[in-house]
Amino acid sequence: MDLAVPPARPDLSRLTAQAAAHLLQRRELTAVALLEACLEVIQAREPELQAWRHFDAAGALAQAQQLDQGPLRGPLHGLPLGVKDLFDTRDFPSGYGSPIYRTHQPVNDAAAVALCREAGAIVLGKTVTTEFATFTPGPTANPHNPAHTPGGSSSGSAAAVGANMVPLALGTQTAASVIRPAAYCGIVGFKPSFGLIPRAGIKSLSESLDTVGGFGRCVEDVALLTSVMANAPQWRQLPIDRKPRVGVCRTAFWDNSSPAAQAAFEATVQRLNTQGVHIVDVTLSDAVNALVEVHDAVMCAEAFKALADERLNHRAQLSERLQAMLERGGQISFEQSLRHRAQVASARHQMGRGFAEYDVLLTPSACGEAESGLEKTGDPLFSRIWSLLGFPSLSLPVGFGPQGLPLGVQVVGPVMSDTATLGFANWIELHLKD
Amino acid sequence: MDLAVPPARPDLSRLTAQAAAHLLQRRELTAVALLEACLEVIQAREPELQAWRHFDAAGALAQAQQLDQGPLRGPLHGLPLGVKDLFDTRDFPSGYGSPIYRTHQPVNDAAAVALCREAGAIVLGKTVTTEFATFTPGPTANPHNPAHTPGGSSSGSAAAVGANMVPLALGTQTAASVIRPAAYCGIVGFKPSFGLIPRAGIKSLSESLDTVGGFGRCVEDVALLTSVMANAPQWRQLPIDRKPRVGVCRTAFWDNSSPAAQAAFEATVQRLNTQGVHIVDVTLSDAVNALVEVHDAVMCAEAFKALADERLNHRAQLSERLQAMLERGGQISFEQSLRHRAQVASARHQMGRGFAEYDVLLTPSACGEAESGLEKTGDPLFSRIWSLLGFPSLSLPVGFGPQGLPLGVQVVGPVMSDTATLGFANWIELHLKD
Repeated sequence: MDLAVPPARPDLSRLTAQAAAHLLQRRELTAVALLEACLEVIQAREPELQAWRHFDAAGALAQAQQLDQGPLRGPLHGLPLGVKDLFDTRDFPSGYGSPIYRTHQPVNDAAAVALCREAGAIVLGKTVTTEFATFTPGPTANPHNPAHTPGGSSSGSAAAVGANMVPLALGTQTAASVIRPAAYCGIVGFKPSFGLIPRAGIKSLSESLDTVGGFGRCVEDVALLTSVMANAPQWRQLPIDRKPRVGVCRTAFWDNSSPAAQAAFEATVQRLNTQGVHIVDVTLSDAVNALVEVHDAVMCAEAFKALADERLNHRAQLSERLQAMLERGGQISFEQSLRHRAQVASARHQMGRGFAEYDVLLTPSACGEAESGLEKTGDPLFSRIWSLLGFPSLSLPVGFGPQGLPLGVQVVGPVMSDTATLGFANWIELHLKD
Repeated sequence: MDLAVPPARPDLSRLTAQAAAHLLQRRELTAVALLEACLEVIQAREPELQAWRHFDAAGALAQAQQLDQGPLRGPLHGLPLGVKDLFDTRDFPSGYGSPIYRTHQPVNDAAAVALCREAGAIVLGKTVTTEFATFTPGPTANPHNPAHTPGGSSSGSAAAVGANMVPLALGTQTAASVIRPAAYCGIVGFKPSFGLIPRAGIKSLSESLDTVGGFGRCVEDVALLTSVMANAPQWRQLPIDRKPRVGVCRTAFWDNSSPAAQAAFEATVQRLNTQGVHIVDVTLSDAVNALVEVHDAVMCAEAFKALADERLNHRAQLSERLQAMLERGGQISFEQSLRHRAQVASARHQMGRGFAEYDVLLTPSACGEAESGLEKTGDPLFSRIWSLLGFPSLSLPVGFGPQGLPLGVQVVGPVMSDTATLGFANWIELHLKD
């Protein structure tokens, strides 16, 4: 018997945020110990994954020590947090994924970041975003296979949580920038209803679409993180006894999903069926399916306006892909924009009525496993409609495909029913594991 | 006959933006001449009015010379513009009316500012705003009587246009920050439908309310200015042959308006009646009247989130009035916020149906003439409902009260019907002058 051998300790870097918070709140785990476990993972995996644009281990450790010695700050007390580099931060440069802002240092925190810090979170650093949250990627690789994309635009946040570098990270979604990378990285992503979390201090891309969201290891994790930013404490007490009525929505784009994604989806439906869940098949109307194109038009037209300064003063530093997108946006007329708004309002009303028959929709998160190569971040197809409608949605991991990469399914609820949607997603997540 | 005497020239500083643009586009007026006329007024009146936080006469003159020598840039070619100090500007500090940002220099222009520059506007400087566009005023005085407030929060922009320092200025409205100062300063103010003009680079106060608007001397002026930011060229060709059906809406708060404001309002109704306008009396439902309180709650709850960084890191530099407002906001629960959203959606639907019977509403702009003293900016009462509903609204000047200060009436249209609303307001304006 060798008394010098240290006791085996649980791998703290793999704890859910919910479990870690429970221990931190009772002072049964120190912020320093949790952070050190995260830093070990970062040291080991960052050279390969490049999830971070900036991080500050020493600064984070100093904050962790302060938190351990001071009073409990709030629900995120001592939890390490990754912040997408689209959010302004007072202590880290904020580059928005663009060479234009390579050395840009904001004077304050984005409101969402300040709210997380107020609740006790430790901002470990800034995670890589695509160019202004559009389609030109940074260097980040998929934690399950670094030859594949992690998805985007919240590439670094999803990869960091997927690699156990941090339990929680902030993202934003304009098309599919939370749901798709969550699916590709095998974690939970949550995009709340449009308008619940403040966007002050986030680089604007498309004002009627940009939405703050979060990444974690389970539904309770993302609920914990976003509850602080939405000022919704009830999201921290999700019921687990609410069996949902599920609308199964394969969409008109089902053929765009891979056989593996289809199989994982059908297995999920079958699993819910076995659990006695009431299931109805939902076919979207042509008007709702048409929103895929409307989404693109709205995003481009609003980006043309939002990025007016960069378009006028830094055109040569915009990627060709983004320049083309802005040009497309500039050609959309005012009348077209008004028609698009009317289409959205009508579809929102129509889809809202559908939720009388089911509590949540189950629909694909993405077309399949993460694509190989780091030049693209994948197709946002399966989230465009829900982003445009402003409905809350989550991606839940449901196993792996033939390439060994994760697959996800998407749970979508009616607008402003985030509390119920999180509760139903929590039920589904728990019962998929049974 | 003394040939050395210069010919009398028209007072260029009093030209409407529309008239000046017409001359500038034909090269019958130089940008330099127009600007010099404005600078003369500024030199004469700024010490008394303090409308500007920063201005740069030399820089503006250099731009005007460039514009005179170069090709036509766009619809605002050569027009001097004042920009509320709530908008970021790459060449002027941006203080947001707060000591926290006294020396803050943004790296780029707010999107709305960039769009105006793209169209050829000359940004002459930054105009005074109240603290973060709330209720604690800067030093600006009313151009019609410097012992009185110009209104707020777009205090400097309204005073500058009212004093003929510039033909056009940018403002924002969260409660009544365009309509009230326009009425107090005897000019036209226009708050478009919520969501038409990008807010990127504007200090956020209340995300579901903050709206970019504009000030000018007539309806065509504000339409010209905002058309550029909304990408709505049709606002530059307003029809004058559209006789509106007018819903006269004295509101439940009629008794809060002064006898002079009531008399000016009734005279306007009488005048329209004489012109053969179809007039219906409109009584708002209790649910719509209740929006006055809902507006305040939404604004405070959203400001609590949007100003999280300042609340956490600079509390001592926030005015007591603002601290109290944020505290009120922090106490509004998530459930209350959801109920407020539902109330707004229901009222918007109900009011929208009303517009089948009339094209625009005529309603008071403010409680009366500008109050004496510079410690307060007046009551936003008569704009809260329309700001919360996101409806387009204009304030039109309708003469003067017993204190010699201007009075205004408000024209309100249905949401996203800005083109028609501007057209009807243009008709009303022209026929009030007959």
